Amino acid sequence: MKAAFEAGIKLGALYHQFVGTPISPKTINVMKEAIERSISNQPYVRRVRVEINEGLVKKSLNVFGYSELRGDMLSAVVEVEYEGCVVVAELKYEESLEYPLMRLVSVREGGGPG
Amino acid sequence: MKAAFEAGIKLGALYHQFVGTPISPKTINVMKEAIERSISNQPYVRRVRVEINEGLVKKSLNVFGYSELRGDMLSAVVEVEYEGCVVVAELKYEESLEYPLMRLVSVREGGGPG
Amino acid sequence: MKAAFEAGIKLGALYHQFVGTPISPKTINVMKEAIERSISNQPYVRRVRVEINEGLVKKSLNVFGYSELRGDMLSAVVEVEYEGCVVVAELKYEESLEYPLMRLVSVREGGGPG
Amino acid sequence: MKAAFEAGIKLGALYHQFVGTPISPKTINVMKEAIERSISNQPYVRRVRVEINEGLVKKSLNVFGYSELRGDMLSAVVEVEYEGCVVVAELKYEESLEYPLMRLVSVREGGGPG
Repeated sequence: MKAAFEAGIKLGALYHQFVGTPISPKTINVMKEAIERSISNQPYVRRVRVEINEGLVKKSLNVFGYSELRGDMLSAVVEVEYEGCVVVAELKYEESLEYPLMRLVSVREGGGPG
Repeated sequence: MKAAFEAGIKLGALYHQFVGTPISPKTINVMKEAIERSISNQPYVRRVRVEINEGLVKKSLNVFGYSELRGDMLSAVVEVEYEGCVVVAELKYEESLEYPLMRLVSVREGGGPG
Repeated sequence: MKAAFEAGIKLGALYHQFVGTPISPKTINVMKEAIERSISNQPYVRRVRVEINEGLVKKSLNVFGYSELRGDMLSAVVEVEYEGCVVVAELKYEESLEYPLMRLVSVREGGGPG
Repeated sequence: MKAAFEAGIKLGALYHQFVGTPISPKTINVMKEAIERSISNQPYVRRVRVEINEGLVKKSLNVFGYSELRGDMLSAVVEVEYEGCVVVAELKYEESLEYPLMRLVSVREGGGPG
């Protein structure tokens, strides 16, 4: 329960901290790494992986040659451990809903070394 | 589990969307209401209450007569319902840790009309 | 010069602080007022007016009945005074560029009571 | 005038996009680079330099071993060129004011190769 709560915090934080950031194809990699490592600072995080959809960034370039990070460009997986419970959660744009959906992917309760 | 995850998302979003906002004693009320109603738009939310510590805002005024919303000024309670499970979670600055702690307050599993 | 610089700061701050905020038709008014009053806290500001395009918010509602504040929904006018120079600047989505353009609207140099 | 306006936009954007980001000594470099390159995407920017005060980050670590990017930790220099006018502006925490001050450093009007 607490691990799921913590995973939710990380995805909510990630999304609302970084959406709106100016982005272009040549800054995708550094932004992806900065987001991963920034969110990895938060408590109980074991792993953060971020993807930024390069095709969509390219399609979205404005007249000045850049775009802004939007929910449909961004996907993320976070793995959180709290008192032996490991939760994996993801943010992924769900085309059918036109919505950046956050969902629990797996929950592994306690037991043994993480 | 899913309700706790959703509650985490709301608190992470609330914090990272609004921290850094210029604030002064006379704009506390409108900002508090805007945050509450903004986050209430998100899925599964039943209630959001936000408090902004007026004393701390006043103590933190800069030479231009305002401050910025920081974690130590901000507290929030969110109530989320997912498939009959109601979770209450809060954000509250924990003096002993000097940290804006987010925690689960109560979990009421399914059963009956919410 | 300095007034124009200050006006730019306000528009950059306004945009990047609030883009990404959850929004729906019923929270447009409180968000508009919160943005106006929040940015009015900043130095040298005489006036901030914000509009959020209700039609576009309605058209952009997701399956959960809300949207996020985006640059194409948002327009703003800020009036800044610095040492007698009054600058009006605006943020407005420029359809032809598909870009939330910020531009100087007028500059009135010094002289007389503001 | 327009170059000064543009420089203001960049500093306002930089500040309000990234303040609140989780940070620790080991993520300073990637965050610094991500901010520089992200803001460099914006129109008319020639150069962005960001510094994050490592000593202050270390002093501000919470019980979980990280902090949040705050105005007093952050300094930046942006160089903007608009129609031959080059403006350098900076964000720097002013200890005497306890304020993250943004100011024009130099303005070089048109003429010759930038």
